[in-house]
Amino acid sequence: MILRETKLIDRIRRLADAATNRSVVRGIGDDCAILRVRPGFELLVTTDLCVEGVHFRQEWHPAKSVGHRCLTRGLSDIAAMGGEPLACFLSLGLSSSLPQRWVDGFLQGLRDLARHFKIQLAGGDISSARRITADIVVVGEVPAGKALLRSGARPGDRIYVTGDLGGSAAALKRLYKGEKIRLVKSSRHFYPLPRIEAGLWLRQKSKANSMIDLSDGLSVDLAHICQESRVSAILYADRVPVAKGADLALALHGGEDYELLFTAPARAKLPQRIAGARVTEIGVIRKPSNYSSAIQIVGENGTVRSLAPLGWEHFRK
Amino acid sequence: MILRETKLIDRIRRLADAATNRSVVRGIGDDCAILRVRPGFELLVTTDLCVEGVHFRQEWHPAKSVGHRCLTRGLSDIAAMGGEPLACFLSLGLSSSLPQRWVDGFLQGLRDLARHFKIQLAGGDISSARRITADIVVVGEVPAGKALLRSGARPGDRIYVTGDLGGSAAALKRLYKGEKIRLVKSSRHFYPLPRIEAGLWLRQKSKANSMIDLSDGLSVDLAHICQESRVSAILYADRVPVAKGADLALALHGGEDYELLFTAPARAKLPQRIAGARVTEIGVIRKPSNYSSAIQIVGENGTVRSLAPLGWEHFRK
Repeated sequence: MILRETKLIDRIRRLADAATNRSVVRGIGDDCAILRVRPGFELLVTTDLCVEGVHFRQEWHPAKSVGHRCLTRGLSDIAAMGGEPLACFLSLGLSSSLPQRWVDGFLQGLRDLARHFKIQLAGGDISSARRITADIVVVGEVPAGKALLRSGARPGDRIYVTGDLGGSAAALKRLYKGEKIRLVKSSRHFYPLPRIEAGLWLRQKSKANSMIDLSDGLSVDLAHICQESRVSAILYADRVPVAKGADLALALHGGEDYELLFTAPARAKLPQRIAGARVTEIGVIRKPSNYSSAIQIVGENGTVRSLAPLGWEHFRK
Repeated sequence: MILRETKLIDRIRRLADAATNRSVVRGIGDDCAILRVRPGFELLVTTDLCVEGVHFRQEWHPAKSVGHRCLTRGLSDIAAMGGEPLACFLSLGLSSSLPQRWVDGFLQGLRDLARHFKIQLAGGDISSARRITADIVVVGEVPAGKALLRSGARPGDRIYVTGDLGGSAAALKRLYKGEKIRLVKSSRHFYPLPRIEAGLWLRQKSKANSMIDLSDGLSVDLAHICQESRVSAILYADRVPVAKGADLALALHGGEDYELLFTAPARAKLPQRIAGARVTEIGVIRKPSNYSSAIQIVGENGTVRSLAPLGWEHFRK
C-alpha cells in the first residue's frame, strides 16, 4: 500500500502543478497547505462528499465525468456565495482492484475543470476503501462582509434562477430506465459547469440579496432560503424554466443542475442573461406563512398548492 | 434519507455551537463557511480521510475514540507547522443501519477534542455509505512566512522527537492478537492528544527549522523530511524513546503516535520538556548520501545499517 500510495501521490502532485494559483503559498508536499488571503477579503470553505453508488455509478458515469462532477459540487457552493475559487483539496478512497485507467480519468476530469477556473489542487489524502469515495474541499475568497448568504431574502423580493432546471435529473431518470445517453461535453448531467462568473457578477453588479446553488433541487433549496431568511415563497409553475427532456416535476424536485437560485428587491433591474446564462423570474418572497410548507406554487389554471421540499432522493422512491 | 439527513444536520449544528471561534464569521447553515484571517497571517489547510476497516474497527474502537482520533489526525498536521487551529469540517459517510448511539458517540469524541482546543465545527457534508467514512478538514493560521516546513533541515542539525514512540502501534498489535486493552483516557492509541502547544512553542521560541508529525511512523516521516530538505539522516537506536509495551521496531515503524519530529541547529539549546512533552535528541542530519536509503541507523553495538521507510501498513504484513 505504502509504495502504491507514494506513486499515486507523485502522480497527483504532477497533476497539481498543471494549474497554479497565486493564493497557494505551498501546495502538496507538507503537513498542511499554506494559503494567502488578500487584505480585506474573507475565506470561503466548502466540502462535498461523493460516494460510488450514491452520487455516481461506474457503469453510468465515465471516470472523467465523476472527477468533473465532484469538483463542480464544491465550485458551485463558492459560486452561490458570489466568491472566487482559489484552491481545492481531494481526499480519495480507492479499492486496490480499481484499474489505474479509472483513477487517471477521474484526475483528468478534475484537473481540466480546475484549469478552467485557474484553481490549484493544493492537498488531500488517500486511503484504501471498498467503494470509491471522494471528498472535495474548495476554498475561495470574497471581499469581507460581501458574501451572498441564504439569509438575505425579504418579503416582496423577486425569485430568479439561471439556466434551465430538471435536465440533470431527466438524464439520471433515463439512466435508471437503462436507456443509452449520448455523452456530450455540454451535458448538464455529465459535465455541469458551475456558475462562477454569474455568481461573481450578481455579487458585484446586482442588488441580489440572497443566493443558493441548485444541488438538491428547487423545492429543497428554495426551502433553505425561506428557512434561513425566515420568509415564505410563491412560485409560478408556468414560469419555471424546464430543461429539454425534463418535465415540471423534475424541474421542481430534480437535483444536480448546479444553477443559481437568488432573490433581489422588486425594483432591481436584472438582465435577461448573466455571463451567458439565461435568467428567469419564477416567483415572489412573502412574509412567513402559517402553512406547513414555506413554498406555495401557483398552477397554470390559477390553483394554489403547497410544495413540499422533496428533492431528488425522495422523489425517485 | 432527506428527513434523516436534516435531523442529523440539526444535531451536528447544535454540537457545532458548543465551541465557537472568533475566526469563524459564519459556520454551518450556508453554501460555504466564511472564515476571517488576521492581517499578517497565512492559512493552513489539511484533510485526513478515516475509513472503517482501514483506520479503525467498530469492534476495537469505541465511537468516541474514533471521533477523537479523526480530529487528532488533522490537528496534528496543524501542530507540525507550528500553527494554531481555528476550525474543522466533517464529511461523513454513514450506513443507514448504523445505530444512532454510534453516531452520537463519534460526534461527542470529536466535539470534546474541538472544545479542548477551542476550534469550531464550521461545516461539512453527509452521505450514505456502506462503511463509515469520515474526512476531516482542519483549518489553522500561522504568521506569514513562519510555518515550520519539512524542507528546512540542514546538514549538522540535530533530530528530536517529543514523547515516546511505538505506543499506539503496540496497542494495535495487541488488538490484532485478540487481547483485551483497558481503555484509559490517557491512551496514546485511543485518545492521542495532538501536540498543538509544543508545536506553537517550537515555532515561537526555538530555533527548530523543520518539523513533521509522526503519523505514518518515524522511518517514513523522517524520510519525508530528508526528501523535502534534500538531506540524509543518522539515527541512534539507543536514543529512540520507546514507549512502554513497545519495542524498537514498533518505535521506528509504528504509526499514529502523533508526536512531533523536528530538527534544529546543533548550537540550539532545547529544554528537556516542551508543554509537558519530553524532548529527546535521536540523531543528526547529514548531506545527501549515496546509500539507497536516506536514513542510516547506528545500533547499540556500533553497527550501521540502512533504515527503509516501512511504516506500519507495510510492517505488519
